[in-house]
Formats: sequence, structure tokens, C-alpha cells
Amino acid sequence: MSSTHNPYAPNPSDFISNVPRFEIIDSTLREGEQFANAFFTLENKIRIAKALDDFGVDYIEVTSPVASDQAREEVETLCKLGLKNSKILTHIRCHMHDAKVAVETGVDGVNVFIGTSNFLRQHSHGKDMSFITKAAIEVIEFVKSKGLEIRFSTEDSFRSDIVDLLNIYTTVDKIGVNRIGIADTVGGANPRQVYELIRTIKSSVKAEIETHFHNDTGCAIANAYTALEAGAKYIDTCVLGIGERNGIVPLGGFMARMVVSAPDYVKSKYKLTKIRELENLVADIVSVNIPFNNPITGFCAFTHKAGIHAKAILANPSTYEILNPQDFGLTRYIHFANRLTGWNAIKARVEQLNLDLTDDQIKTVTAQIKQMGDIRPLGIEDVDSIIKEFHAKENDTVEVPGAKRQRTD
Amino acid sequence: MSSTHNPYAPNPSDFISNVPRFEIIDSTLREGEQFANAFFTLENKIRIAKALDDFGVDYIEVTSPVASDQAREEVETLCKLGLKNSKILTHIRCHMHDAKVAVETGVDGVNVFIGTSNFLRQHSHGKDMSFITKAAIEVIEFVKSKGLEIRFSTEDSFRSDIVDLLNIYTTVDKIGVNRIGIADTVGGANPRQVYELIRTIKSSVKAEIETHFHNDTGCAIANAYTALEAGAKYIDTCVLGIGERNGIVPLGGFMARMVVSAPDYVKSKYKLTKIRELENLVADIVSVNIPFNNPITGFCAFTHKAGIHAKAILANPSTYEILNPQDFGLTRYIHFANRLTGWNAIKARVEQLNLDLTDDQIKTVTAQIKQMGDIRPLGIEDVDSIIKEFHAKENDTVEVPGAKRQRTD
Repeated sequence: MSSTHNPYAPNPSDFISNVPRFEIIDSTLREGEQFANAFFTLENKIRIAKALDDFGVDYIEVTSPVASDQAREEVETLCKLGLKNSKILTHIRCHMHDAKVAVETGVDGVNVFIGTSNFLRQHSHGKDMSFITKAAIEVIEFVKSKGLEIRFSTEDSFRSDIVDLLNIYTTVDKIGVNRIGIADTVGGANPRQVYELIRTIKSSVKAEIETHFHNDTGCAIANAYTALEAGAKYIDTCVLGIGERNGIVPLGGFMARMVVSAPDYVKSKYKLTKIRELENLVADIVSVNIPFNNPITGFCAFTHKAGIHAKAILANPSTYEILNPQDFGLTRYIHFANRLTGWNAIKARVEQLNLDLTDDQIKTVTAQIKQMGDIRPLGIEDVDSIIKEFHAKENDTVEVPGAKRQRTD
Repeated sequence: MSSTHNPYAPNPSDFISNVPRFEIIDSTLREGEQFANAFFTLENKIRIAKALDDFGVDYIEVTSPVASDQAREEVETLCKLGLKNSKILTHIRCHMHDAKVAVETGVDGVNVFIGTSNFLRQHSHGKDMSFITKAAIEVIEFVKSKGLEIRFSTEDSFRSDIVDLLNIYTTVDKIGVNRIGIADTVGGANPRQVYELIRTIKSSVKAEIETHFHNDTGCAIANAYTALEAGAKYIDTCVLGIGERNGIVPLGGFMARMVVSAPDYVKSKYKLTKIRELENLVADIVSVNIPFNNPITGFCAFTHKAGIHAKAILANPSTYEILNPQDFGLTRYIHFANRLTGWNAIKARVEQLNLDLTDDQIKTVTAQIKQMGDIRPLGIEDVDSIIKEFHAKENDTVEVPGAKRQRTD
């Protein structure tokens, strides 16, 4: 790209923005295990953890060791893998019992959570705020005494009372929690709401902010981005976004968002060319297909079809592309075999076929292709045969189907 | 729901917000036709148009009649369908030639577009701003003289010079254009950037604002929502989001977003129970699968798995659900057959099976199920058989496998 101005760069007025210094807490092995189709064997957990580490996520969050005996043994095994880039966290309830089990597993840190919204206070654990605060302090001080990182998160933060949130966050901040977690547990938050809540909390605490956005209303990636603008630093992701219901921020889609806004940081820190492999690995393990419209790796993410687009793309790819497929180890595909095609796309194909036609000739053959495209879907081979037939006629060779054609070739 | 407070409702400070009065311009038959896999026969176009009309979209945008002879005839046919809810628009370049063809087809309105960003000015049509302005005025006055609605849109608005944009929008606003279009053609915009640009333009024009957001960086739905907050009124959508590359705002996902924020408006205006049918129709026609994580209709959108979630969901569904599956003609599924299950989910299943067990007994059988779930994935029938076996033993019946079991049943 010749331009040095990036219109999607962080807003320079946002001194609080962490867009160019965010970190990833990947939760495929925790939130992702709550996905309907997920049943991870230890072998597959190891494969996923190693692939996430190779990609370069900053943290890997794993299922609570309290869930079952096997879960605890698996956490211990994952902690012994010797990962290069990723620290390991486990996600537990805000209970001393859970905390005591967690700190013995070898994890680098503990992510505790508790529900604070009215809905959850009534229907999930039934605790009131003073009880919540007391439990939080006890657990945080215990985990810190063991020399481990600790995050304290509310659940369903966007339906919680702001006074309750500020009370509990400032309390745990004073006793030195490393990260404060803000969770859109039901996936209903919208970007400006996210910006306001996170900026407000950020102005009241010293701790860094971690966010967890569910995707029920399709806003998870945008909410995560806006959270960074408001001063959050850590984003929870899952490969392909797998998790409860339709999941959380997808790692690949989030990378698409971030590479546009902070290209140097993202390209130097994460191995973007590994996204496809990582997504294929997890898709295979949980038996789903990569969505056709998945950012980056969906089959059509870099396909251009309309003639007017194809023309401009051939002249300068960034005309209609904000993502460069090469950054992800992928290639662009210009779809010219249809009736919306333009003569510029056909010209490019003529050149690829190493044939020699004038622009006027190309316009004529494009009209023939469009006419054929009105009748039925065209494959590349259809287009190529029309072009070759046309080229042969224009060059006065004898080009007819069947036996005679064999003789003249 | 007992609560009347909606934490996701429009921000009351936004007097400019159109969140509770947006309209949909569905472009499945235009943008969607630019999707790599789309080849719509006239018969399928009619099926899609009728289904969109039945759902209740406000406008249906169709491919330019200039694309081919057949395209023109098809536009004419679609205009004669006698749709009840949806007006028909066609999308053309800002050329008098295109406009003359378009107004003869019977459409209710014309959507013109022109590229204004530096990228497009250099690489696509090569026109400068005074030429663009002159062409826009001529076309708009012509279409208005025929009594049709007219929208004027820039392409790639977020990479365009704001002075150029305001110049051209205020110019076309003065001659009475109905809608001004703002397009994120490359899919790189983020929500706060959208809010600022649209609010700025809204403050300078009388015309309503239409938006067109591509989804390359996963922000299309959130950008559309934020555009409404900033005063835009019309949102371009496609069924399943199909379009160039990985497409634009998906109609279903956008409905998930809007029903949370403006439930009364959305439920009274659009037939939400038709979303699944509409998506299946289009998915079938373009040969794609519904993405596993699609909002509303993805197979896991209303599936709950973790024990802690299942417990709360059974007490009150809105604890972990911001969308009500019944609004969409769908049902909730609590996934209890796995090792993350909790005893509350098992208790619910015991009740469904019409068996009588105490809470302590249920906790014991839950431990057995979790133990089995550590060994291999459990189906519903596995869980049911463990529960039934346990129930039989606890009730002192002779319950053993094989022949003896037959005798005691």
C-alpha cells in the first residue's frame, strides 16, 4: 500500500485506548468446552493448547479443575506442556474450595467469577452483595499469597447495578487484583454501552480490565474492539467463537478487526498465517463446518464477483479489500465466470491464458460470456472455452468441435 | 419477564436515535447476487421476494436492469408481483443511461451510487468531485421528475474525504434526494467511527440516511445498530448476510440485535417466526449451510450446557438468555448429557421422565453421569438409562440387564 494514512487506526483522542497493545485470553479450552458439540479428550486439549501457543495467544484459559477428577488431572497436564507464549489460567467460582484446588494445579493464574446482576443474584447463587464482597476478598488474598495472577470478574455485568459494580471493583482493586473482568454473559450489550461502562470503571481502578463478550446479538467483535478503545486491555476469545449458545468473540474474526486497526502490532505479535490451521483443527474436533461467511477463512472472504469490483481490484487490491489475503497465507480469487462479470475481469483471464486480444475483442467476448451466463451458471472452464473459441476464430484458424478440431490443433 | 426495565433499550439521551423506528432495505436480490455462490433463476428470485415481503422488509433492492437483457426483464417481473409490505428499488450506477432504463421497469425507487474515496476515484471510475456532483444532480432530478424515490450513495464512504462527502451530500439534499447512502464498502469501519460520521452528516442534511455495512472485520451488525443511534434510519441487509466477499449485515442477526433493543417495535412489525424459513430458503438456493453459530437459527443458539447455566435457566430463562426462542418459533434445549452437567439439569430430566427421586439421590446419580462423561461423550439415551437404572435400584426392584430385566419390567 502506498498510503501511510490508516483511516481505521485508533482514534488519536483516545489516550485511554489499548487498541495497539491488547492481549488475548483464549478460552477455547473453557468457554469452548461449554459449546454444545465440544467434548475434548486430553489429547485434543493438548493439540489445541499447542496450536494456540504457536499462534501466540497471551493466555489460555482452561476448565475448572473442580468439575471432575479428570478435569483436575488434565489441568495439571496442560500446565506441564512448557508452552512458549501462553500462560495458563483456570476459571473457577469465587469459592475458597475451588481456589484451593486451583492453586495446586500449576496454573499461572486464576480467573474467578461471580454473578452480580439481579437476575443472577435471585436465580443462580442467591448471594447478596456483602457476601459476594467478603468471598471475593478471601479468595483474592489467598491466590495472591500463592504468588499467582488473579482476575475477579462479575458475571452479567451489563445487567448489574453500576453502584454494586463500582463498589466491588474498587474493593478488589485495593487488595491488588491483577485484572478486573467485565462479562456480557447473555450477549446483549451494544458498543456505545460497552464504551461508557468500561470507561467509567477504568477511571475508578488501577487494575487492568478483561472483557468477555457473548455473541447472541452479533456484536461480540465490535464490543471487544470498543472495549479496547475505552481502556480494556484483555479480550477473551475462542477459536471460531465456540461457547455457550452461539459463543463469544471468535479469535479469527477478532484478528481481522485488529489487523485493520493496529497492523504493525498484530502482525509482529501473532502468527496470522496459522489461523486457518487452528480453525480447521478445532472445527474438526467439535464436528462443525467453518461458516461460509467466516472472516478471513470463510470460502468467500477474498472472492470478488461483480464486474465493477473486479475491475478495480485488478488495478489495486486495496480498492475493495481492507484485509490482505497474503497476511493470512491465503490468496485472492476473482470470480469472473458469471453474468455480472465485467470485461476487465475477462481481460485479466485472457492474459492469464496467455492469449492476445484487443480491448474491443475482449468486450465482444465478454458480451458473449454474459449472454451465456443468463442461461446457466458458468464454471471457469466454460469461460475459458468461450474465450479460446473466440480467440481461435479471430485469428483465422480453423477451430471447430470434434474430429476436425483435433487435426488443426 | 417480570421486569419492565430494559437495560439494552435505546440510550434516552439520544434524541437523534432511530433505534425504535428503523426500516430494512433487504438487498439479497442485489448485493446477495454478488455472493460467490449466488446464481438466482427468476423463479428463485420470485420465491425470495415473496418470502421477504411476507417477513415484512420495507424495501427489496434488486440488481441493476442494465446488467443484461434478462436482468431488465426480471426486474419488471418482480415489480409486477403485487407485494404487500415491500417496495422495490433497483441499484444503478450514477449514469443517465442506467437511470433511463431503471425508471421504465416499474420500480418504486432507484438507489444510485458513486465512488468518492481516493482509492475509488483513482482506480475505479477516475472521476473528480465536480464531475461526480454534476452527474448526481442530473440523475436525481431525472428520477424525481418520474415520481420515484431516489437514494444517492457514496461508495467507500469511510475512506472518503469528509469535506467531499459533506459537499456532495448537502448538494443532493438541496435538490430533494429521499435518502443519502453511507457505505462501508470494504468492511473496515468500527462503531464509534460510524457514530461520529453519521451524526456529523445527519446534522447537515434533511434527507434520511441509509447505511450499507460489509462484514469483513465482523462489525457489520454493531455498526448498523450504532448508525441507528446516530440518526440513520435505513439498514441494508441480506438473508444470511450473503454478498461480495463475506457479505453485509445479515437480516437474522440484525433482528436478534434489534429485538433486544426495541422489542415492541420489532415484534409488531416483522414476522420473526419466518426467519428460519427465509434463511433455509436462501441457504438452499445458494448451496451453503446455516453457520453453526448463526444468531437465532444456528444449531446451538438456544442450547445451554454448563451445569451452573442450566440450573439458572431452569429457574428463570432470562438469566442466561437475552433472546426468547419462542419469539422466533424455536425451542430451548438444555444440554445435560455431559460431564459439565449439574444436578439441577438432571433433576429437570428426572421430572421429565416422571420418576421420583430425592435431591440427594439426584446428586448421587449426577456424580455417576459425570463419571461416565469423563470416559466418553454421552447421548440423551445414555443419561436416561443411567437415571432409570439408578431409579430402579433405589426402589428395590430387581433391575439387571438382559433376560432378567425383561421379566421384572
